Amino acid sequence: MRIALDAMGGDFAPGPIVQGAVEAVRSQKGTEVILVGDRAKIESVLADCGADGHGLEIFHCTQTVEMDESPVEALRRKRDNSISRCWELLAAGRVEALVSAGSTGAVVAGGLLQKRFLRGVKRPGIAVVLPTALGPCVMLDVGANVTPKPEHLFQYGVMGSLFAQHILKIDNPRISLMNVGSEEQKGNELAKETHALFDKSHLKERFTGNIEGRDIYKGQAHVIVCDGFVGNVVLKVCEGLVEMILNNAAEELLSRLPAEHHTTARRAFEALMQRYDYSEYGGAPLLGIDGICIICHGASGAPAIRNAIRVAGSFAQNQINEMITAELSGLS
Amino acid sequence: MRIALDAMGGDFAPGPIVQGAVEAVRSQKGTEVILVGDRAKIESVLADCGADGHGLEIFHCTQTVEMDESPVEALRRKRDNSISRCWELLAAGRVEALVSAGSTGAVVAGGLLQKRFLRGVKRPGIAVVLPTALGPCVMLDVGANVTPKPEHLFQYGVMGSLFAQHILKIDNPRISLMNVGSEEQKGNELAKETHALFDKSHLKERFTGNIEGRDIYKGQAHVIVCDGFVGNVVLKVCEGLVEMILNNAAEELLSRLPAEHHTTARRAFEALMQRYDYSEYGGAPLLGIDGICIICHGASGAPAIRNAIRVAGSFAQNQINEMITAELSGLS
Repeated sequence: MRIALDAMGGDFAPGPIVQGAVEAVRSQKGTEVILVGDRAKIESVLADCGADGHGLEIFHCTQTVEMDESPVEALRRKRDNSISRCWELLAAGRVEALVSAGSTGAVVAGGLLQKRFLRGVKRPGIAVVLPTALGPCVMLDVGANVTPKPEHLFQYGVMGSLFAQHILKIDNPRISLMNVGSEEQKGNELAKETHALFDKSHLKERFTGNIEGRDIYKGQAHVIVCDGFVGNVVLKVCEGLVEMILNNAAEELLSRLPAEHHTTARRAFEALMQRYDYSEYGGAPLLGIDGICIICHGASGAPAIRNAIRVAGSFAQNQINEMITAELSGLS
Repeated sequence: MRIALDAMGGDFAPGPIVQGAVEAVRSQKGTEVILVGDRAKIESVLADCGADGHGLEIFHCTQTVEMDESPVEALRRKRDNSISRCWELLAAGRVEALVSAGSTGAVVAGGLLQKRFLRGVKRPGIAVVLPTALGPCVMLDVGANVTPKPEHLFQYGVMGSLFAQHILKIDNPRISLMNVGSEEQKGNELAKETHALFDKSHLKERFTGNIEGRDIYKGQAHVIVCDGFVGNVVLKVCEGLVEMILNNAAEELLSRLPAEHHTTARRAFEALMQRYDYSEYGGAPLLGIDGICIICHGASGAPAIRNAIRVAGSFAQNQINEMITAELSGLS
């Protein structure tokens, strides 16, 4: 399995990104990573890690898309940027997957510009794995498509369902539509029309209807389908809320407990923080692409990158894309 | 101050609803409450509370809108329902405010059917107060308007800003637009057009641009403007997440701490749960209505209802509606 890794993408790139690749090729047999970015910077990190270069290759490029740039504009202006180069390696068949912790918008735009969609897919969507009281669930789209049509959301149901079955290993996953109420007639036009599409589809047995925000974490659905605008806002709200609550809880507790138990309490909170840290799940796949594209959180450290490379491998082994194509072509 | 209280609305109505009214008239001088609902049921709760009837009146009606009914249909079919009766009391000038913990959709629909909008207001919006690391902020709309136009969101900025100034007592509140990225060109058409409206408005000095979900809880904005679909989903996701995290945190901690500290730890978590319980803030006002309408959480207990009645009073005293009308009429 060969993977193109955007060595320049991420808040702390290239340090932890390159280090994650070094760890991945050491621990995951048969994995080869092409590090895409500034050769001198990458080599310096490799030297620091004591990497022997086995399973690693550098593809030099001179530009980086910054987090605050307009994605499409940046890709057009900076022709030699690391994200576009990763997509080109995928298009040329030199790698099977790309992994990036750079600007999500630019990674998605790179894919859209290449129009490398799987046959039958209208628009790719980003899927994230969320923890619930009953185990993981997958929510999509969380930001690739902020103006979706009902048919796009329906296809997210098909793709998310295959992901839940074959990556999360959930038999007969239940699919729900994110909405503002549980009744069928609730929501905006997009929600109502999407509901109707599921109801008359081959997935209707597994479609449980609308889900409200408060029920996501109860684990009532395995696949949650939503507009990329809503999904992106929800994901980031959760990130901020988890941090605030755990900080406040730690403060509240430590102020009440005797000093000798502070270390124990701090360790409990560290364990919790890790449990809710979605980078632990190894990045979010952009589903619907002909190839494998894993998008990581900007703040990713080496373990998150190593996990993302592992997820890319398991994605290929499970032949998710082949199944998506088969299921969607059966519908048209 | 006279208030119509929907005695039949809420998961546990009429018990805690009527009890909240009893507590309010006892503790808040000059408050009179008309309890709207089934006379026999209300009288039975009043007897249980040992209420002497001072400051309370019953307006009998025979029907209740259930939580799972289609709001508009239910209001049309059940002419003698408690929500419509509350709105009629407001329209007739017999009360200055209405408070309900019943179906949010039905309360909003009741207001829309009456078309009791303040002069200049295009669409009312529900405002909720959220806790942040730096104090409270107000987010609107959270469910009255799931297909808003840019102009509606702009008006939410005007109304939310007056609410933040005069109810939350924040000088020069900062207004932000909920979006999927901080850059101006981010988001769907609604977000982009709303951003442009604020940029050329009299509020531009106080408009800080887009805010991402993860920054809400950092307290970067005092007024957060969003589509009612997004706001509703976010609010409910937060509710579910807070519950899950605090439960998990309590479990994780108790399993590590010696038994003699369990009571202390449990008390800390109860205090935290209360801090994030938004019913403590006394309900969510439907802003833009000619009159005062406070919507409470379905699970409201007596303290939440008492708080909502108090908020209705403070809303009237501060003459928020007069200021909204003045500011919007200055713009047209």
